[in-house]
Amino acid sequence: MIRQHLTHVERVDWLRLARTPQVGPVTFAKLIERYGNAIDALEALPDLAAKGGRIKALKIIGRDQAEAELSATDDFGARILMACEPEYPDLLAVLDPSPPVITVQGSLDPDAAPCCAIVGSRNSSAIGVRFARELARELGQAGITIVSGLARGIDGAAHMGSMETGTIAVLASGLDHIYPPEHSDLHHGIADKGLLVTESPLGAVPTARDFPRRNRLISGLSLGTVVIEAAMRSGSLITARLAAEQGREVMATPGSPLDPRAKGTNKLIRDGAALIESADDVLDILRQAKRPVAAEPDAPEYDFGPMDEPSASIRARITDLLSPSPVSIDELVRQSGASAGDVHGVLIELELAGRAIVLPGGQVQIDYSDDQD
Amino acid sequence: MIRQHLTHVERVDWLRLARTPQVGPVTFAKLIERYGNAIDALEALPDLAAKGGRIKALKIIGRDQAEAELSATDDFGARILMACEPEYPDLLAVLDPSPPVITVQGSLDPDAAPCCAIVGSRNSSAIGVRFARELARELGQAGITIVSGLARGIDGAAHMGSMETGTIAVLASGLDHIYPPEHSDLHHGIADKGLLVTESPLGAVPTARDFPRRNRLISGLSLGTVVIEAAMRSGSLITARLAAEQGREVMATPGSPLDPRAKGTNKLIRDGAALIESADDVLDILRQAKRPVAAEPDAPEYDFGPMDEPSASIRARITDLLSPSPVSIDELVRQSGASAGDVHGVLIELELAGRAIVLPGGQVQIDYSDDQD
Repeated sequence: MIRQHLTHVERVDWLRLARTPQVGPVTFAKLIERYGNAIDALEALPDLAAKGGRIKALKIIGRDQAEAELSATDDFGARILMACEPEYPDLLAVLDPSPPVITVQGSLDPDAAPCCAIVGSRNSSAIGVRFARELARELGQAGITIVSGLARGIDGAAHMGSMETGTIAVLASGLDHIYPPEHSDLHHGIADKGLLVTESPLGAVPTARDFPRRNRLISGLSLGTVVIEAAMRSGSLITARLAAEQGREVMATPGSPLDPRAKGTNKLIRDGAALIESADDVLDILRQAKRPVAAEPDAPEYDFGPMDEPSASIRARITDLLSPSPVSIDELVRQSGASAGDVHGVLIELELAGRAIVLPGGQVQIDYSDDQD
Repeated sequence: MIRQHLTHVERVDWLRLARTPQVGPVTFAKLIERYGNAIDALEALPDLAAKGGRIKALKIIGRDQAEAELSATDDFGARILMACEPEYPDLLAVLDPSPPVITVQGSLDPDAAPCCAIVGSRNSSAIGVRFARELARELGQAGITIVSGLARGIDGAAHMGSMETGTIAVLASGLDHIYPPEHSDLHHGIADKGLLVTESPLGAVPTARDFPRRNRLISGLSLGTVVIEAAMRSGSLITARLAAEQGREVMATPGSPLDPRAKGTNKLIRDGAALIESADDVLDILRQAKRPVAAEPDAPEYDFGPMDEPSASIRARITDLLSPSPVSIDELVRQSGASAGDVHGVLIELELAGRAIVLPGGQVQIDYSDDQD
């Protein structure tokens, strides 16, 4: 994403495009890449959605609604940052795709110090909570900002341990939604001394789809992610996977084979995560971490290729290849025989039509929510 | 070591050479390699020791003493196996060097099934003991013979779990020395249903030098070694290192960073040991383990080269390079400028003189015991 200063009207249109329900982060980035700005993309949306097979009209919010969100956020004491703006965090700006819009509240600059995520089980042990708090405290004293998800258990302990040195909490909800209730003081403390970050607008209650986006922000803000106590198939393992996809460091603390809370972290270590027992171990890993840089903008798999319209037959062929479980876009290119540019073009149309979800990480699946609202 | 049937007199001489205090396993193998048999090596010993600077005469036991050990061992219900004999365990025979002589008691054939070592802390947790016993039981049911060191804690649990399916206990002492006392029933049970193995003669009480040799037998009998709960600088880590030197699999169970008993196993995992949480994990590793084969007999570092006598100046140069901490023989060759054959020749003389200890694994250190007895 090219960094630029936006006018007020450009910010409003950027927010309108980002808040269109069918525009996921991949499609957002592709539209900006193709049309160069938000207003031209917004004007193209109805036609693209119709080509994808959409029947109901897309709900594109008006300028007044976007203005209202901007001023309400301002009144709340928070700020909205667009992915192309200079104030947007560097480590999120290099993601492919970047989250199009984030809302932040607090006094901490995430670019001021290297960030490290500490995440783990909500249902954590007393020893795990103690370890997370101590690790966060020692990393904080060594100049690292801690990032976590403000959940019960490990997340909360990581924030508590780093409250005085620098802590960033990433929420799935709007910033005015406090959850869990017992973290109310923590939430307000972070809004004051640290930083709250979310992709959701004020007033939003989280849905299932918001948690992977929250996790992607946690890993994306950080040079590396440490997982402390995690069961198999837990959100923490998703955060670890996203960190790996983003080219960031993945670290995990081991545990006894007889402890179900160690199953996930032991699996991560087995799969190649660095085994972490102390703050020094984490600092060693972070020191040797490569500074994240933006993906090569002309990497073939993200190249639109010629701006030809995909033909109806190519659209049908690609639609047939989709399934409820994610398939890679590379695989679609191979199996369809279509060009990468055509496949990406069709996927944008299908996502806008509410028939596909294009996931960060180069995968796509059928959208079964099918509400077309 | 070339497999061969020995006559009774040849067995007696083999045992005499092996029981000569200054003849370590490396020197034993080199002497057999150079002289072709034990009697010629025995006859060469006094001259070699004198060249190494020995003042007191070497204590070489007489044929009557060796005969007495053989018959006492027989009366005890045990057997002495020479490293070249067909009954000697295959996995020990491929070691470089093989333990020259072992004494065994019991009904189990260590070559009949694949062996896996399970070792760990004497001061183990209840959960560690339970895990070791279950792991041994499940591996036993899958057809694996379990090898351990009959110590308190993890070792004892590993034997108990595999008593019905096949268990081998390796001792540092003679087979008639029962330690710890609470493992008396276990000791006798293994002598009956399993196999006791030691490098020490009947009546021998273990000294510090016997434990590394015991550990080398444990790893050497096994396709792989699993370490369960081990502190830093513990004997179990030595066994793991020896297993790696022998080209065998190294496995470890992880534990909490706050548990001092997990420090050693976590370190092993960090250094590349396979992370083990279940019998299936161990079986996967053993299935893909390469069948151990003998080291190439003419590997350059073990080649005596021409049988020239090392000159006095070379002997002095090599002696000067030795230190109380082990140095590699390769390093001695490099630093002395002497041939590998000359270095090995000098080291044999120095070991016989009681001035050096040549360790399995290609290292040598000054012998400070200096008792020349």
